[in-house]
Amino acid sequence: MKDFKFHNPTKVIFGRGKISEIGKELKRDGIKKVLMVAGKGSIKRNGVYEQTIESLKNNGIKWVELWGIMPNPRLSKVYEGIDIAREDDCDAVLAVGGGSVIDAAKGIAAGIPYDGDVWDFYTGGPPSKVHPIYDILTISATGSEMNGNSVVTKDDTLEKKGMHGAPLTNPRASIIDPSVQFSLPKEQTAYGAIDAITHVAEFYFNGSKELNFPDRLCESLIRTIIDNTDVLLDNPEDYDARAELAWSATMALNGMTAVGRGRGDWASHQIEHALSAIYDIAHGAGLAIVLPAVLEFNRDIHRDKIEQFGERVFGAREDADMVLERLRNMYVEWGAPVRLSDVGIPEEDIPKIASNGSIGYPIGHPRKLSREDVEAILRLAL
Amino acid sequence: MKDFKFHNPTKVIFGRGKISEIGKELKRDGIKKVLMVAGKGSIKRNGVYEQTIESLKNNGIKWVELWGIMPNPRLSKVYEGIDIAREDDCDAVLAVGGGSVIDAAKGIAAGIPYDGDVWDFYTGGPPSKVHPIYDILTISATGSEMNGNSVVTKDDTLEKKGMHGAPLTNPRASIIDPSVQFSLPKEQTAYGAIDAITHVAEFYFNGSKELNFPDRLCESLIRTIIDNTDVLLDNPEDYDARAELAWSATMALNGMTAVGRGRGDWASHQIEHALSAIYDIAHGAGLAIVLPAVLEFNRDIHRDKIEQFGERVFGAREDADMVLERLRNMYVEWGAPVRLSDVGIPEEDIPKIASNGSIGYPIGHPRKLSREDVEAILRLAL
Repeated sequence: MKDFKFHNPTKVIFGRGKISEIGKELKRDGIKKVLMVAGKGSIKRNGVYEQTIESLKNNGIKWVELWGIMPNPRLSKVYEGIDIAREDDCDAVLAVGGGSVIDAAKGIAAGIPYDGDVWDFYTGGPPSKVHPIYDILTISATGSEMNGNSVVTKDDTLEKKGMHGAPLTNPRASIIDPSVQFSLPKEQTAYGAIDAITHVAEFYFNGSKELNFPDRLCESLIRTIIDNTDVLLDNPEDYDARAELAWSATMALNGMTAVGRGRGDWASHQIEHALSAIYDIAHGAGLAIVLPAVLEFNRDIHRDKIEQFGERVFGAREDADMVLERLRNMYVEWGAPVRLSDVGIPEEDIPKIASNGSIGYPIGHPRKLSREDVEAILRLAL
Repeated sequence: MKDFKFHNPTKVIFGRGKISEIGKELKRDGIKKVLMVAGKGSIKRNGVYEQTIESLKNNGIKWVELWGIMPNPRLSKVYEGIDIAREDDCDAVLAVGGGSVIDAAKGIAAGIPYDGDVWDFYTGGPPSKVHPIYDILTISATGSEMNGNSVVTKDDTLEKKGMHGAPLTNPRASIIDPSVQFSLPKEQTAYGAIDAITHVAEFYFNGSKELNFPDRLCESLIRTIIDNTDVLLDNPEDYDARAELAWSATMALNGMTAVGRGRGDWASHQIEHALSAIYDIAHGAGLAIVLPAVLEFNRDIHRDKIEQFGERVFGAREDADMVLERLRNMYVEWGAPVRLSDVGIPEEDIPKIASNGSIGYPIGHPRKLSREDVEAILRLAL
């Protein structure tokens, strides 16, 4: 086992009806006024907004609202949030939404007390002072509710970059009510699951030799994500399946899967960031295309681990290529694209994708990938 | 899945040579002087004390020392520590040792700022103000390094009671260097493993229906503990096995295994507390006797889960009684007692054990056990 530090101070409050606790949490921490950050308005349709406001009112917390955070959140919205929070003297940021909303909220929280450009934290080191962050999660996917990461896209250059400010940029408290995800469209459930699987895979396939608990943890998470996604695509209102998927997606990127493994690969995420920065396809859809291709490209170094994965997750000891075929087939059954052609991206775009500024070459671990390698990976995904 | 809160702010610093980081951690938190709490002196023989002192000196941290914390730590030593820390103006408590030392340190840290008797926190509610706690772990067993629990025995009545003050009584930082456990006697390794297995079992066998990730997590932990204990009893200096066992023992009681399950049973621990309060046998030895008997007594409500455990942990789908026999046989192979007679406790002592003040009837979950039930359990362990 490799050395590690694990430190995750986020408090998770999990269960049906728990949104009502947000006001109490804020009050306990001495918060008077929050900037509430939200997306396009689904929280007004599923009752989450109403429950949130009621809890804030009941606990005497004031708020101002910033709407319109989109998937692949833009830096311009982060700037907008920083301006509002400063003008209105907000002493915390409350994200109500999915990973994009939480990521934008983290950027805002880091930018409020900072004199320079908050983009500095996405291109350089982490912030040293951050406004308190809270969230109410509405879609399980990115794990942002229990880590310090934030991914934001710069409007003009379409660069998609990450800030890694844990533990300062971890939410202080995250409320996860799985029942608010009953109304998610099937594709969002599937893409969220694929994002979570890929988070686990970035660490699982990082060149580590076989590990005992760290491997089993990863395999247990992916197996749980698969089984419960299968259930939810048939019955989106199965509470236990929503809960199992939600907690597994949170665990998939809260630091636990990194324990004892050393650094993750992150090649799939970097390549996908380039894809979704240019085409604005869903992150989970991009990952369904990229991860199998990255594993195929690197199968010489991951062969044993891919076969272990096949045995313990899919239940059959098979050749690595067969395991990757099973993975792609499963994604297809879930309605996800697994080829660039499935989302209408032509072969001639490959050099443009590989040259996108979201990718800071070399990428990947343990194999360092060059632009030529990434072009080869994208050709495996044609 | 049941609702839950998860909040564990302890920072874990894990790996060979990491003791050198303790001074830096304390300095970063503004600590000037610590009360160092330790046991009988093994840390002077294995180099842990020297590494600790060197790190404190290098970072300008002053310290005073309290030695002599014994297994099943006594309240009188907690009082002694409170007095010293107050007299010497210590602003934190640093435990250097195993679970007993950390538990005593937590009691001291809770007692320093409290006007009343610290025993109040063991018989009533948790403290509201606690001095910062840090530790350097020297034996993997209790999980105290990453939770807010402390178990202390009152000298005169031999009552063994727990304080549950998380997150305030969680260590701020815990340093786990698995290599310092190379020199542990075999029986301490085995008893530590049995303690950790029992921690997982208290939640796993709590009457929950089959859960997906929560069950797999528990099974992965116990499987890891078993496999690596087997390795260590042959080769105590296998670093990877020490590391796997250490991290699994920490995970076994840091809140993760409780997620989605509701409350634990804790009948085995309560009964064992009575045993070790009276006879001063090792906690892990007592648990090796008690857990199989509790599961045998409750096998009507746990039958499916015991058989699932047999299949996923021991690798064979068998009758529940066979699974419990396997568990006892494994403990015997590890050199642990599994019967009261193995440690010389006669049948006529059973009423005295069941009447010990450590047990606050009714105990257990979901089945509430009476004194008569506990006597019946102890007879199953004859």
